[in-house]
Amino acid sequence: MAYLNDHYLKLKAGYLFPEIGRRVKAFCDANPAAAARVIRCGIGDVTEPLPPAVIAAMHKAVDEMAVRDTFRGYGPEQGYEFLRNAIAQNEYRDHGIDIADDEIFVSDGSKCDCGNILDILGSQNRLGITDPVYPVYVDTNVMAGHTGEADGTGAYAGIHYLPCTAENGFVPAVPSEKLDVVYLCFPNNPTGATASRGQLTAWVEYATANRTLLLFDAAYEAYISTPGIPHSIYEIPGARDCAIEFRSFSKHGGFTGTRCAFTVVPKSLLAAASNGELRPLHPLWNRRMSTKFNGVSYIVQRGAEALYSPEGKEQVRALIAHYMGNAAILREAVCAAGWPAFGGVNAPYLWAGAPGGISSWRMFDRMLTEANVVITPGSGFGSKGEGYFRISAFNSRQNVEEVARRIAEVKW
Amino acid sequence: MAYLNDHYLKLKAGYLFPEIGRRVKAFCDANPAAAARVIRCGIGDVTEPLPPAVIAAMHKAVDEMAVRDTFRGYGPEQGYEFLRNAIAQNEYRDHGIDIADDEIFVSDGSKCDCGNILDILGSQNRLGITDPVYPVYVDTNVMAGHTGEADGTGAYAGIHYLPCTAENGFVPAVPSEKLDVVYLCFPNNPTGATASRGQLTAWVEYATANRTLLLFDAAYEAYISTPGIPHSIYEIPGARDCAIEFRSFSKHGGFTGTRCAFTVVPKSLLAAASNGELRPLHPLWNRRMSTKFNGVSYIVQRGAEALYSPEGKEQVRALIAHYMGNAAILREAVCAAGWPAFGGVNAPYLWAGAPGGISSWRMFDRMLTEANVVITPGSGFGSKGEGYFRISAFNSRQNVEEVARRIAEVKW
Repeated sequence: MAYLNDHYLKLKAGYLFPEIGRRVKAFCDANPAAAARVIRCGIGDVTEPLPPAVIAAMHKAVDEMAVRDTFRGYGPEQGYEFLRNAIAQNEYRDHGIDIADDEIFVSDGSKCDCGNILDILGSQNRLGITDPVYPVYVDTNVMAGHTGEADGTGAYAGIHYLPCTAENGFVPAVPSEKLDVVYLCFPNNPTGATASRGQLTAWVEYATANRTLLLFDAAYEAYISTPGIPHSIYEIPGARDCAIEFRSFSKHGGFTGTRCAFTVVPKSLLAAASNGELRPLHPLWNRRMSTKFNGVSYIVQRGAEALYSPEGKEQVRALIAHYMGNAAILREAVCAAGWPAFGGVNAPYLWAGAPGGISSWRMFDRMLTEANVVITPGSGFGSKGEGYFRISAFNSRQNVEEVARRIAEVKW
Repeated sequence: MAYLNDHYLKLKAGYLFPEIGRRVKAFCDANPAAAARVIRCGIGDVTEPLPPAVIAAMHKAVDEMAVRDTFRGYGPEQGYEFLRNAIAQNEYRDHGIDIADDEIFVSDGSKCDCGNILDILGSQNRLGITDPVYPVYVDTNVMAGHTGEADGTGAYAGIHYLPCTAENGFVPAVPSEKLDVVYLCFPNNPTGATASRGQLTAWVEYATANRTLLLFDAAYEAYISTPGIPHSIYEIPGARDCAIEFRSFSKHGGFTGTRCAFTVVPKSLLAAASNGELRPLHPLWNRRMSTKFNGVSYIVQRGAEALYSPEGKEQVRALIAHYMGNAAILREAVCAAGWPAFGGVNAPYLWAGAPGGISSWRMFDRMLTEANVVITPGSGFGSKGEGYFRISAFNSRQNVEEVARRIAEVKW
């Protein structure tokens, strides 16, 4: 008799965004007139077209696939050398960070990488996960059997939650407990918070002292504009020996529907076998990718490479300026409404306090039904997100200005 | 202290194809003159360009991504409806097989799916795996901790091996033991064998009687030309309740470097929780894909859809005819050399016995150094593959004819 993975049965409700999708659909079906007015600032999905440099590169790559002499079959599972080199050079070495080409693993998404990284880690690790948090970190650990059951607040046994609150600026201090694996995400999704060099240095020192593995999600680093804020964990001395970094082309290159990301696994990064012997993780991840993955579409990799051309870089800067202009408008609207406002300065997300002490899902429903705006309820990201909501700046300028007007108009 | 997944340390040597790559590189580096003569019939990678219908569809999709109104961000994790529908209709319903659109899960590769499917299965399942076999089935189970250590022959404790030999036509009979999960692959990689309706019926009856889950890999079904041989496990009554099917666009659409495949999980397929309660696997796979995957590139999905257009179908037929013409030439050459020859009729692989009782790797080395032809050593697929080698028909006609000449010329 075939058995299923029981750990899946511990998962609470749906994954956050499908649940939002269901509520929006129900509202639109019941209110066809209002449906046309709905503006989606929920899921963090980009809205602007791909940069022209990417389009040109992908057309060229498609043409190569049409001719026998330039056709590409299986590529390296780790990514083509041209892209690994462009990434390592532009994202790291040009900024004085020591990362080799073959420490870059190209993938089809950071969501995949964040989940798949658990393949190479032991089940005995004590996990540290921030609250609120991108739900994938939690759910993939539940699915892998690294947690117990959830309690009434949705918190899973076996996870050490690191509260991110207005009091700590949504950047958790290092804990007194020794944790084995800790997820950090800066600029943060959902709160939009960034971590200072000092804060990240404290984390790297903690990790070094405890041989903790930091899983550092920097999917939004391109949105940092304030000088001095680290874009990569590897800006911190010692991080090569304690951190894996996840990056994505989704949010600055517009690749959410095109699919390309990468993970950095330094060769100096060690973890323990269960007998305590230290071994490098790089060969394990390389084996994982060789065995369970076949590389990203050649056409897509050529598109990603084009983001590093001079025109590509200029076009990305314009995209980011557009979205951050949106964030400034939303931030102003939220402040004008008198709601607590966080983020939206070095990140494309605004994290706002719901007015009148109402719950996150209540605010979600009010925004949907009264302003016809889809936001993301903060409690969907964890119990400490209760009372907050996230507004995404990924939209057209016209829509964002309309959202600002509606926030001002509704009697909250 | 962060712990790694110890099960990775049980894996033997490199994954087969990287090992072949290393040997070929060493030979070419040491013999620059011979390097230019090397013809690769090792890895099953297509060589012919993408069908024109696919090229046109991808250009159109790239153009859509360049314009705000037609730009696509995140798509459904399970695949776009247009592609799920085209697959379910063309591959199944047009052949009288009852598969719904939402039982199709589009992915970036069958290798990924074959590995990832273990995410939703329990660790207590008794596994049945053929020998020889596509190494991914074995390695992913080792990595997931479903096996013990390997013995001297490379066989892992905890796997029930189903020998595929010349005596049984490389199609294993159902075992007397009750197995929980069995991998079947027809047309077979590496042997090129196909299973008859009667043989597959026996497997479905076995699975039904024992509540066994069949993981049916039909990546090569498009190469079947002999009437009466099933293309899908779902042609067998009862298979909807006991089988998951893996399919790929790689080998007939030329998508090895473009990346698109799909997995069929019928909604009527049940498996047991550890308390014995039966539950459908469809929601678990749906949850897995929603949480750990973000869908296939829109551009690639439009390319795959085009394989189902009238022109696309005609172009695929021509591609298959080309590769199977190659297979016939190779088969003739192997037979003329007096070597035992299997496969190559309804599959793009020829499975040949090495002459003079030499080992598979010895034959690999002789073919490389004396004929400058890369083949795949049969023992790389399992202990029962020892003494055999696989020749891939994926090549240009000119190369295949040259390989045939060299087989005839070398004194074996």
